[in-house]
Amino acid sequence: MTKEFDRAVFESTLTKRFFYVPSFSIYGGVAGLYDYGPIGSVLQQNLINIWRKHFVIEEDMLEMDGAIITPSEVLKTSGHVEKFTDYMCRDVKTNEVFRADHLVEGILEMRIEESKLAKQAASGEGAGAEKAKKGGKGKVPKGAVVLSEEVEKKYEEILAQIDNFNGDQLGEIIKEYEIRNPATNNEVTEPVAFNLMFDSSIGPTGNLKGYLRPETAQAQFVNFQRLYEFNNKKMPFASAMVGKSFRNEISPRAGLLRVREFTMAEIEHYVDPLKKDHPKYEEVKEIHLNFLPAEVQESGSSTTVSMSIGEAVEKKIVNNQTLGYFLGRIYLFLAKIGIDETRLRFRQHMSNEMAHYATDCWDAEIKSSYGWVECVGCADRSAYDLTAHSRRTGVNLCAQEELEIPIVYDALVCVFNKRLFGPKFKQNAKKIQEALEALPQEQLAEIKKELDSAGKCSASLGLPEPVEITSDLLTIEMQNFKKSVREYTPNVIEPSFGIGRILYSLLEHSYYTRPDDASRTVFAFNPQISPIKCLVLPLLTGPAFSASLNHITKTLRSAGVAARIDDASSASIGRRYARNDELGIPFAITIDQLTVSENLVTLRERDSCQQIRANVDTIINIVIDIVNGKSSWEDVLKSHPTLSSDS
Amino acid sequence: MTKEFDRAVFESTLTKRFFYVPSFSIYGGVAGLYDYGPIGSVLQQNLINIWRKHFVIEEDMLEMDGAIITPSEVLKTSGHVEKFTDYMCRDVKTNEVFRADHLVEGILEMRIEESKLAKQAASGEGAGAEKAKKGGKGKVPKGAVVLSEEVEKKYEEILAQIDNFNGDQLGEIIKEYEIRNPATNNEVTEPVAFNLMFDSSIGPTGNLKGYLRPETAQAQFVNFQRLYEFNNKKMPFASAMVGKSFRNEISPRAGLLRVREFTMAEIEHYVDPLKKDHPKYEEVKEIHLNFLPAEVQESGSSTTVSMSIGEAVEKKIVNNQTLGYFLGRIYLFLAKIGIDETRLRFRQHMSNEMAHYATDCWDAEIKSSYGWVECVGCADRSAYDLTAHSRRTGVNLCAQEELEIPIVYDALVCVFNKRLFGPKFKQNAKKIQEALEALPQEQLAEIKKELDSAGKCSASLGLPEPVEITSDLLTIEMQNFKKSVREYTPNVIEPSFGIGRILYSLLEHSYYTRPDDASRTVFAFNPQISPIKCLVLPLLTGPAFSASLNHITKTLRSAGVAARIDDASSASIGRRYARNDELGIPFAITIDQLTVSENLVTLRERDSCQQIRANVDTIINIVIDIVNGKSSWEDVLKSHPTLSSDS
Repeated sequence: MTKEFDRAVFESTLTKRFFYVPSFSIYGGVAGLYDYGPIGSVLQQNLINIWRKHFVIEEDMLEMDGAIITPSEVLKTSGHVEKFTDYMCRDVKTNEVFRADHLVEGILEMRIEESKLAKQAASGEGAGAEKAKKGGKGKVPKGAVVLSEEVEKKYEEILAQIDNFNGDQLGEIIKEYEIRNPATNNEVTEPVAFNLMFDSSIGPTGNLKGYLRPETAQAQFVNFQRLYEFNNKKMPFASAMVGKSFRNEISPRAGLLRVREFTMAEIEHYVDPLKKDHPKYEEVKEIHLNFLPAEVQESGSSTTVSMSIGEAVEKKIVNNQTLGYFLGRIYLFLAKIGIDETRLRFRQHMSNEMAHYATDCWDAEIKSSYGWVECVGCADRSAYDLTAHSRRTGVNLCAQEELEIPIVYDALVCVFNKRLFGPKFKQNAKKIQEALEALPQEQLAEIKKELDSAGKCSASLGLPEPVEITSDLLTIEMQNFKKSVREYTPNVIEPSFGIGRILYSLLEHSYYTRPDDASRTVFAFNPQISPIKCLVLPLLTGPAFSASLNHITKTLRSAGVAARIDDASSASIGRRYARNDELGIPFAITIDQLTVSENLVTLRERDSCQQIRANVDTIINIVIDIVNGKSSWEDVLKSHPTLSSDS
Repeated sequence: MTKEFDRAVFESTLTKRFFYVPSFSIYGGVAGLYDYGPIGSVLQQNLINIWRKHFVIEEDMLEMDGAIITPSEVLKTSGHVEKFTDYMCRDVKTNEVFRADHLVEGILEMRIEESKLAKQAASGEGAGAEKAKKGGKGKVPKGAVVLSEEVEKKYEEILAQIDNFNGDQLGEIIKEYEIRNPATNNEVTEPVAFNLMFDSSIGPTGNLKGYLRPETAQAQFVNFQRLYEFNNKKMPFASAMVGKSFRNEISPRAGLLRVREFTMAEIEHYVDPLKKDHPKYEEVKEIHLNFLPAEVQESGSSTTVSMSIGEAVEKKIVNNQTLGYFLGRIYLFLAKIGIDETRLRFRQHMSNEMAHYATDCWDAEIKSSYGWVECVGCADRSAYDLTAHSRRTGVNLCAQEELEIPIVYDALVCVFNKRLFGPKFKQNAKKIQEALEALPQEQLAEIKKELDSAGKCSASLGLPEPVEITSDLLTIEMQNFKKSVREYTPNVIEPSFGIGRILYSLLEHSYYTRPDDASRTVFAFNPQISPIKCLVLPLLTGPAFSASLNHITKTLRSAGVAARIDDASSASIGRRYARNDELGIPFAITIDQLTVSENLVTLRERDSCQQIRANVDTIINIVIDIVNGKSSWEDVLKSHPTLSSDS
């Protein structure tokens, strides 16, 4: 199917049938913003509902709904104010703006392509030769340069690492390879960092700066203590949040895949760093996934390895059970909603592409016409965020473990002579005291030795000047301790779902055309995720028909089953089936003369086009049961013979 | 219950059990932003899911999910850039900011109260006298002034109209009555308009201004044509959207009732202005509501009238069937989720409080400890928005009606002599031509008369100068027309739900304390809306107990039923029931020795504290059926005798 896939036709169907469209299009639209119509929005909702059942309910997670507007202090702590940036440059004359890495990428790819065409034209062979002959729009562009093998290799190297360059490096590449605005041939400015968060001001004073959140995670972390208490202080546990996040892309592209406003579903699983096993690990251990480990990629290959999660964890390809468990659950979720398993792989991040907070990361990547796209990230954020927020606010964000056997140990401690210490160091006293108390045991032992022998000691305590301490100010003693509670900052394993990307992939994977008629497009949504569950088609009008129509739609809708009526008597039944197949509606009930005379209706299944006929209420119950997952079309066929198939 | 209601205790329960808390509280919090915890967020979700089933599915509405970030052009057209403001003033010395109407209101209310206390202190009677004697915190404040009857009456009048003053009027009141910052006694500045939208900049150039949407409605209006087409061009129909909207309040107060970020659910029902009847009107006609019509309020009363929707529509108290239909559906929805019907009324807006776009408006107001609060607005926005967007963009936002009997009529039309007309008026030619074509028939008739008689005519066409037209340039002719399609801009009836306000009201209405122990608080959520459906309590630990525990929780959760385990063996069963009643969990399954020996468990209902005992799977199915609305506790008791009731 992928081979014949025509994205232009596909996208025009999505727009025509209002799955989603650029926002505010009657005002010319805004890049990177989309409105989801009746199909797109309900598909997204159903996807989220399945997600909630699969993760939040089945795994007993603590869901939250936090604020979108986030004060800058919080995002300074998380690192987003400093690091959540892309590089941009401008055309020096027209001021047109480019994302620097995309500009370099685009130009180098174009030069390689043009060089290939020009070479072919020169040699008289291949596509370039054809184009050179034809002239016109397809001809080898003027100024196309044949690249030396060395330059071409250099270009390929740059393209392979394009995600890893910082602004200075991009600036050097732009200078060295004379990258210009392709539209004007003007030079572009040095790349500057552009923060990707939308900012605003909270309240009327203008003094409180805020941002639209770039992820839902931070609102979960800052509530860690409340979540931990809600969970009766039991570890491990997870919180979860579904909601919109924002990213002020420099130049949005690739439809739903890179947008400025997007729905995320994020899980933060808090775990003891010493106990990364998972109580339900056994349930996923035997599942086979397509893995693409970092090692394989670093060796230059992108061949996936199929193995069981159990094997991957045992071989330390996947770091721990908890990570493995979530990879398995992510797989089960994606399969459940209808993602094609053969177009799904789990790719490990290489060390140079990891986010600033992550220590290990696996992406669930789904293949579409845009290539392999990250749709779910599963990162081990270690203790990064909780530690940073705790340090910044002074609030304890730790978990406690009661030790069955208390730990008894000796340790050196500082005993200060407060009467002398304060007056001696004045405003620095507190700082020096804290620095001494924070010293590791070995250093304390050294100081003790010097104080005991020489009666004084000069210590560099991270202050501008070394401090001289005398034995009248400080005694260092060995004391005995007993600890019955172990306190630790939990590590966080974070499966983070890009709902829009999953939804787009699902649309591509669900799309097909009827073998006998390429103009008849169908979306093969399964009955659980399909936005509209049942079409109701009256073949004639009149009171008898309306009564049946009302009974059927009212009964279905009262059971929470979305039903659509297509009663345009001007359109043929085939035409009506076709235009509703395009909305992915799995079932259609047709009301005809036999309904009026014998209370019988037909039920048609979308993909097979098979039909059965039965009593109205029997058919209604069949639809409700399938939608609720209590039955399937195959089950139904066992007790109901099919009529002749329609087309 | 309301009488004994202690809001401080109530709110501390909400915070302690993480229903919702101020956002980013470890950073000191941000006024007007709240994070919903595991109970609050899922309660909100369930509320929205019931809303979706009740409205979107049962009424076959077209749901959308539009962008939050909205370009300023759209909100200029809707009137928000100009009119979505409150007035604020500042302390002239400290710069502290006040919302002007709230400041006036607060000060006048305080003066009236102080005057009352001072009068009582002087006369030696009442609360003021008590306070005057006691002194200390409760004493009559220094500087309390006894107001003359006339001044007090004036204050009362101002307070009654506080929502209706513009900035200048508020400024005059502030001057005339010497309103100052109560904390510093400094004067305050003239009130200035403050726009309540959060603004931001879209993209990297800084040239495209955007706002966070103040309502979801506009994203629906700008997509009207796509929605209409999706509905196969049938009228009437409705679109709907659920999502966050934003309002940069000057000084947020009253908890969830006035916040900066809130979830709305809005329906836009598009209807032919000539046909405001509703096909399902019969279904709600007999429902009795408590009405508070504008007329009653204008006569100074706030006594509600109970009558049927049918009667209210017939008497023109409610303008039309469609409005009446939605009032009925709103009532049914609120009753379904658990709002106390005796604390619900429908209040009509008086003409001076209507929003700029509305022609009629009814609010569903719910009574809580904050008084009567608007929770659902149901406005007739007429054709305001569609007309404005269409005019601004030039895009047709009309519906078409095929006329069964075409209309045949004669009309005057302009026939231009293009060869002469263009050269004569040059760059103004097009403008003049359009102005002439847009003239009403009477004016055309006059011009025709003059041209026919004098051969020329001077016409003021809305241009700076009158234009002289001669009969060689223009002929006005009577022509015959036949119209088989009637085109009109639909009117919009908009039920708009403030989800946070409904949720807060529901919390107050659901809250009670056990008659025998005021410290044991309970939330009486019904099984459909309750965030957690079932508590599972193992009374002992060990493998046999864990096996039952796992079986029960896994079965419930697989059926989508949220279950919580409380296995803290250190806490007594009574204590465990109590702390989970506080989360509103309707059912509790207890695992005890009889579970291990005979596979029996008990099931306890939260409000009655009644218990039954039965086989594990029987009990599980009872819970699932009640949660899915297929059965009720009363039904269950018919076939299962209760055990002795616990406390």
